[in-house]
Amino acid sequence: MGSLPIETFQPLDPDVLVKESRAVVDFIANYYRDIERYPVRSQVEPEYLSKRLPDQAPIFPQPIQTILDDIHDDIFPGLTHWQSPNFYAYFQANASTAGFLGEMLCSGLNVVGFNWIASPAATELESIVMDWMGKMLKLPSSFLFSGGQGGGGVLHGSTCEAVVCTLAAARDSALTKMGGDGITKLVVYASDQTHSTVQKASKLIGIPPSNFRAIPTSAASDYALTPDSVRSSMEADIAKGLVPLYLCATIGTTAVGAVDPLLELGKVANEYGVWYHIDAAYAGSSGICPEFRHYFDGVELADSFSLNPHKWFLTNMDCCCLWVKSPSSLVDALCSNPEYLRNKASDAKTVVDYKDWQIALSRRFRAMKLWVVIRRYGMANLMEHIRSDVAMAEHFERLVAMDRRFEVVVPRKFALVCFRLKPRFQGDDPSELNRRLLEAVNSSGQAFMTHAVVARMFVVRFAIGATLTEMRHVEATWKLIQAKADGLLLNGSCDKISSSNGLFSL
Amino acid sequence: MGSLPIETFQPLDPDVLVKESRAVVDFIANYYRDIERYPVRSQVEPEYLSKRLPDQAPIFPQPIQTILDDIHDDIFPGLTHWQSPNFYAYFQANASTAGFLGEMLCSGLNVVGFNWIASPAATELESIVMDWMGKMLKLPSSFLFSGGQGGGGVLHGSTCEAVVCTLAAARDSALTKMGGDGITKLVVYASDQTHSTVQKASKLIGIPPSNFRAIPTSAASDYALTPDSVRSSMEADIAKGLVPLYLCATIGTTAVGAVDPLLELGKVANEYGVWYHIDAAYAGSSGICPEFRHYFDGVELADSFSLNPHKWFLTNMDCCCLWVKSPSSLVDALCSNPEYLRNKASDAKTVVDYKDWQIALSRRFRAMKLWVVIRRYGMANLMEHIRSDVAMAEHFERLVAMDRRFEVVVPRKFALVCFRLKPRFQGDDPSELNRRLLEAVNSSGQAFMTHAVVARMFVVRFAIGATLTEMRHVEATWKLIQAKADGLLLNGSCDKISSSNGLFSL
Repeated sequence: MGSLPIETFQPLDPDVLVKESRAVVDFIANYYRDIERYPVRSQVEPEYLSKRLPDQAPIFPQPIQTILDDIHDDIFPGLTHWQSPNFYAYFQANASTAGFLGEMLCSGLNVVGFNWIASPAATELESIVMDWMGKMLKLPSSFLFSGGQGGGGVLHGSTCEAVVCTLAAARDSALTKMGGDGITKLVVYASDQTHSTVQKASKLIGIPPSNFRAIPTSAASDYALTPDSVRSSMEADIAKGLVPLYLCATIGTTAVGAVDPLLELGKVANEYGVWYHIDAAYAGSSGICPEFRHYFDGVELADSFSLNPHKWFLTNMDCCCLWVKSPSSLVDALCSNPEYLRNKASDAKTVVDYKDWQIALSRRFRAMKLWVVIRRYGMANLMEHIRSDVAMAEHFERLVAMDRRFEVVVPRKFALVCFRLKPRFQGDDPSELNRRLLEAVNSSGQAFMTHAVVARMFVVRFAIGATLTEMRHVEATWKLIQAKADGLLLNGSCDKISSSNGLFSL
Repeated sequence: MGSLPIETFQPLDPDVLVKESRAVVDFIANYYRDIERYPVRSQVEPEYLSKRLPDQAPIFPQPIQTILDDIHDDIFPGLTHWQSPNFYAYFQANASTAGFLGEMLCSGLNVVGFNWIASPAATELESIVMDWMGKMLKLPSSFLFSGGQGGGGVLHGSTCEAVVCTLAAARDSALTKMGGDGITKLVVYASDQTHSTVQKASKLIGIPPSNFRAIPTSAASDYALTPDSVRSSMEADIAKGLVPLYLCATIGTTAVGAVDPLLELGKVANEYGVWYHIDAAYAGSSGICPEFRHYFDGVELADSFSLNPHKWFLTNMDCCCLWVKSPSSLVDALCSNPEYLRNKASDAKTVVDYKDWQIALSRRFRAMKLWVVIRRYGMANLMEHIRSDVAMAEHFERLVAMDRRFEVVVPRKFALVCFRLKPRFQGDDPSELNRRLLEAVNSSGQAFMTHAVVARMFVVRFAIGATLTEMRHVEATWKLIQAKADGLLLNGSCDKISSSNGLFSL
């Protein structure tokens, strides 16, 4: 815009859009080309950025190239590179070209499909793509729009949102019967391995924190929730005059990838009349492969089921699929009908208004993104993508098993391997040693892993799933881990193998 | 990828990313070039899309060009075009090139900054950009990180999320004192003009629906909430043994753009010790212009303040700014500290972990988008953008006033004009007439407006703010409205001016 007077400000000029978008696309492509050069876990100190950026907004416009240069120089050092092939932390957020294109289309069209009329295609594509996903996962027809039993799916931004909404639906159904101060009597059940989001959501919707049960698990069940423990917990609560409300089971827990026995837990849930939710945020995507589908057995007993394509389904942030058998209970809890949103289609109740299936009114066109991913890659490639990650995890697991200093702590089911340096003598607690090993690897900048604690064991989590990860990265990282272990075990210290950037410290 | 074997599936190849991104960018640029050709409000019938798309996912990959062709042919007819210059419905979601680029960078980097270490730059840029925004709006320093009084800001996806989180913070502070079944005694106050999201959020966090007060407003106060009515309502509740918890005031209500008297309401809120939130979702962006800043007077008495850059600040969906004076109360309500997220920086409490300031764990790098918008355009252009929309609204208001069949129903403050066809004789209720006028315009496909009802009056809302809207569009739409009114008033029917696509029906 350079010398143009300010009155001609045209922030959506198509020619400028094309020109500047190309610069940004090239920038991002180069980011992926160069990504292995950057420390995977950011090595900056707190408040590094305020030292580099102005403390107030500019008065006049700045060129896109200046902004991109600043991103390179000032933002990149402060990024932990989730798209690095050596990112093995948490669970991955795996980006893809199709996910990126889908997000671009969502953002470019920039429609807000809170109800049907606000963009019928946004609502209808979402319903269609949720049925596609449901069929790929072989979910029972009671979860599909096309199943004709009233069920259906919706896209949220996160599992927490899905859990909040289903909890609210369960709560309001219960309160309709109980009335009064019933909310203080309702109890939510999960395991000590269930994602923290369920406890947070339970508190958020007004369940007293003391009414959340994180039922203990143990190595005996590979950290899965046992039906007996749930039953005992519910019985104990009923004896106290409390009312079981909601049970959350998990396919692929965060700490160690455990799978709860869905079928048996479902029977208990159904017997006690509680809302049964299954959280498959991470591992759910594997269900498109027949060899993993058996973990879903029992899903037919659930009231709701969720998984995050933004974790392991090549769908850029954010995207969470939630299916419910009884959307009307969601709508009862979440609907709002202000006059300014009224329209013929909604009044006639012939359409889905997704605003009543979620927390917010506004919503992005996320279905576009998921639809583009599925079409651009096809089921065959998506299955291959899951399988190649699992194959790399199997290989890594074998490498760990071949080094007698290490042990795999929990049987691997998906692409997460949990391992540690073993105790060196009877009664040894190697937690501190493994903590130092983890920090040594992460401080090197060459890989990023995180940890969990189960049964008082500090274990290193190695989650394979970043899109760019290949077998050579896994093998190189294993050598790095071994080298750091050498330093720790031989010298009792990692100091001499400190990273070159001088930020390594223990 | 054509003939390559499936084993080489590389979904993040930089060369492919560049090539396919260019195709998508060109597609979006052409969409903007052609956008006036499409009916603004979609004219499809429910379930149109399921007749056009396959009912299951493809096995094999499909080329991006095929997908784009299908979007053009099958999705476009079902879009209500929020980026059309003739979109005057709801409040706009105004896209821009910078917003699009920022979203692209967010999606391309695809980092998940739930806590500081997961990407320090994501957290720190968000804190910096929230301070930039706060300074642009001249918020009191108690809301800024740099204010040194403990306050600060966070980016959410929607106002509803901001309200849920602040309500939960207020609730948990109250329950800490009250204990037991206190939640059933808490009361939330708003007006009958407050966005429905507050009522929904109040129910969501477990406040009994009967404890939500939608205090009536009237034309006498231009539909603003009066301090006396709030005081009376609180006194009545206290007399019943209830406990006032939260008051929401609005700058720019959805129906008619009313502004509540922040200062006077703040005094009442402070006197009764309730959490005071100000929702400036739409009109808040105007606060960067000195001539609108007076509407913010009294914001210094608030506990929290929110506005949506995705409405009127050229920031593509989604982006909601929330500032709080006491983030620690948010954190008390929303924190979770599972072992698998523990890290040195968080344990040392030297950093902000935004997961504890919001509902979800995952979060997108929205700060990147807002930062790019502010830098690429600069405050001068952003002010010009607000002012030009307001100037067009002023012009439209004059046009309405010049046609004696019409009246402006509520004094215009921002870029929303509320008008109607006047009663034609004593005791006439022109609601049905205005309803037909609105449908005539919307069914024509040439413009899209929505409605509100205040004091039993059906009014047409004309919200100017789509990025591509120019004075010529406003003038042409006014002529369209007049022509439709001619048809209605002269012939008692719109049938003869039905739209060419045959979908017009009354």
